[in-house]
Amino acid sequence: MTQSIRPVKGFRFSAVSAGIKKVDSTRLDFALIVSDSPAEAAAVTTTNLVFAAPVEITRRRAARGRLSAVVINSGNANAFTGAKGLEDALDLTAAVAQSLKVDPELVAPMSTGVIGQPLPMERILPKVQELASGLDRGAFMDVATAILTTDTLPKTVLQKAEIGGIPVTMAGMAKGAGMIAPNMATLLCVILTDVKVESSFLREALAEAMRDSFNAITVDGDMSTNDTVIVLAGGHESAVELGSAHSDREAFRSLLNGACANLARKIVQDGEGVTKVVEVCVCGASDNEAAMQVARTIADSPLVKTAFHGEDPNWGRIICAAGRAGIAFAPDRVDLFIGNVPIVQEGTIVESDWEPAAHRRMKAGEFQVRLDLKSGDGEARILTTDLSEEYVSINADYRS
Amino acid sequence: MTQSIRPVKGFRFSAVSAGIKKVDSTRLDFALIVSDSPAEAAAVTTTNLVFAAPVEITRRRAARGRLSAVVINSGNANAFTGAKGLEDALDLTAAVAQSLKVDPELVAPMSTGVIGQPLPMERILPKVQELASGLDRGAFMDVATAILTTDTLPKTVLQKAEIGGIPVTMAGMAKGAGMIAPNMATLLCVILTDVKVESSFLREALAEAMRDSFNAITVDGDMSTNDTVIVLAGGHESAVELGSAHSDREAFRSLLNGACANLARKIVQDGEGVTKVVEVCVCGASDNEAAMQVARTIADSPLVKTAFHGEDPNWGRIICAAGRAGIAFAPDRVDLFIGNVPIVQEGTIVESDWEPAAHRRMKAGEFQVRLDLKSGDGEARILTTDLSEEYVSINADYRS
Repeated sequence: MTQSIRPVKGFRFSAVSAGIKKVDSTRLDFALIVSDSPAEAAAVTTTNLVFAAPVEITRRRAARGRLSAVVINSGNANAFTGAKGLEDALDLTAAVAQSLKVDPELVAPMSTGVIGQPLPMERILPKVQELASGLDRGAFMDVATAILTTDTLPKTVLQKAEIGGIPVTMAGMAKGAGMIAPNMATLLCVILTDVKVESSFLREALAEAMRDSFNAITVDGDMSTNDTVIVLAGGHESAVELGSAHSDREAFRSLLNGACANLARKIVQDGEGVTKVVEVCVCGASDNEAAMQVARTIADSPLVKTAFHGEDPNWGRIICAAGRAGIAFAPDRVDLFIGNVPIVQEGTIVESDWEPAAHRRMKAGEFQVRLDLKSGDGEARILTTDLSEEYVSINADYRS
Repeated sequence: MTQSIRPVKGFRFSAVSAGIKKVDSTRLDFALIVSDSPAEAAAVTTTNLVFAAPVEITRRRAARGRLSAVVINSGNANAFTGAKGLEDALDLTAAVAQSLKVDPELVAPMSTGVIGQPLPMERILPKVQELASGLDRGAFMDVATAILTTDTLPKTVLQKAEIGGIPVTMAGMAKGAGMIAPNMATLLCVILTDVKVESSFLREALAEAMRDSFNAITVDGDMSTNDTVIVLAGGHESAVELGSAHSDREAFRSLLNGACANLARKIVQDGEGVTKVVEVCVCGASDNEAAMQVARTIADSPLVKTAFHGEDPNWGRIICAAGRAGIAFAPDRVDLFIGNVPIVQEGTIVESDWEPAAHRRMKAGEFQVRLDLKSGDGEARILTTDLSEEYVSINADYRS
């Protein structure tokens, strides 16, 4: 275990090596998370029209609001694999359900890796029993490691809080080495908590948490075929129920928001070839959606991202990207800051010698760009990265 | 002159060195195109909300349908320069009009270069007389050279045709080293023809020609503050008028389409760090707009573009980009080709050993990717490029 995550009451973990990508590999690539009793569940999956077989199954099963297990493989996305892919995913969850003695409808599959190749069922199915036998309350990090692909590090979070006098634990794991996009596959995230929360509220809270986390990193712009976030709440029969008081609900939302935001930031930080993490903050838009549209256009602009890489406070590229976002504002009123250094005020370049100061801010690994459109109260933030030569070489060489 | 373009009857050209970007430079950076008598005119300008002062003036003047001169400077975009910028551009065109003895309303300005800095009027204005005195029917290539910024080569086209028994000449010049985007400034294009064409038809024909040329390269996705295309038709009093016969009109459209497409392709070929020019062709969409939406999403995807750079027939990235374009289609019906090599048919990877053949196609400097969605008759083509390490280093080092 590379990092200590204390168990979340009600959940057990297991990971084994099934040689999914390479027959003779000893890398962990097949993992299982099981709740002691059916947990309340919510899931968010990719909006890509082309989605993988496990996504189809997880969507349907999570929609019922309860899950007992999540089975995850890396090395193969089981995407663009047709009817055979769906059959394989169903067979896999059936085998897992049988070994756990639970209803197959309570098992959600997740896959990540290469697309267009059938799952090597002949190597996976014989490992199901070993996987189930190895379940352990302390093996959280084994699973967090088994789900990785091109990531350089496991990404985990542990949060504790007291809600309505009850101590609550929330732990999460994620994978995704995407910068502009997850590398052909996938943001996967599982969040576990020991408090029981009815699935309808869980679904609503997850949708909200997505907005400022996984949907506010540029990864989202290129949603892959397999992206999936699952939350399981209260995995044991005696789990305490979340109180219905408004303050309790808000405390839970805040915990979930924090966990998602933490994991989303870790995904950006571990992005391919990333040397800078930049928060693009747009305020003063007509509404929040307009602000996000402008922020996203800036955050996805290759010219802006290469300027970030060069630590070049090239305000012209930022303003120009904002101008083509399709959102109305008055260019002669805007303010622009890098860090806390004002560069443009009321649509005019400031007269002071701002450039060395702005350049200094950009030398840091993380900094903020803030654009105030002065046209309303809408505001949005998005985390983005620089675009480096290394990103290009990683992705140009991906399969060679 | 680096290339021979024979004069278009009715137009004269001139270019001088005004030291606009660097005081002591001898580089041509200030240019003029003049028609012997007012020409019929049409213009298309950037859709960016942030547009330069010269764009504002050119829009207004071209909308009246007649122009006598186009004055162009490189080295400074006169963009984001506020009221002073507009005043400068008006003063410049007034000075040009005075030296040519024409109405200032017949002079259209174009600028390209750095943004946010005032035009160095003290160096430009004294050069106006020299510019006007140097007008020459043969100096087309001098102007085509003077308008360049980071371009490596001038981009020109010359087309001749016989329309209704009359010989017609059309010549064009363009600048723009954009790959994903023109480098903070600008596609500029001027097209000249010796046939007289009323401006209403010219406007309509230009809009059509844009669709399959400058609007079908990824440059368009990042329209800059200064992008401008101007067409001048019939620059001398005795210019022959285009016949009103349908066949004559179609012949003219075809000539203009060809000139625009030729220049657009040259801009892509000269893109920053470009090693591959790729035509992304999407057919079988519900309509042409849907097809363009899918084609553009593929053509702008950094993962697709890096795969092009690596000569990697990574069909998964192409299909995945199509899937997030927001257009409905059935993934299990699509066909995908690289060059003429089938890779996916009816939603299934072909069984033959397609990979070496597809890889071979991608070794060429230009190749085609074709995706058939099998959901309708909509079709679109877009020219894109690879994304190279060199692109990143050019743009990260832009101002340093």
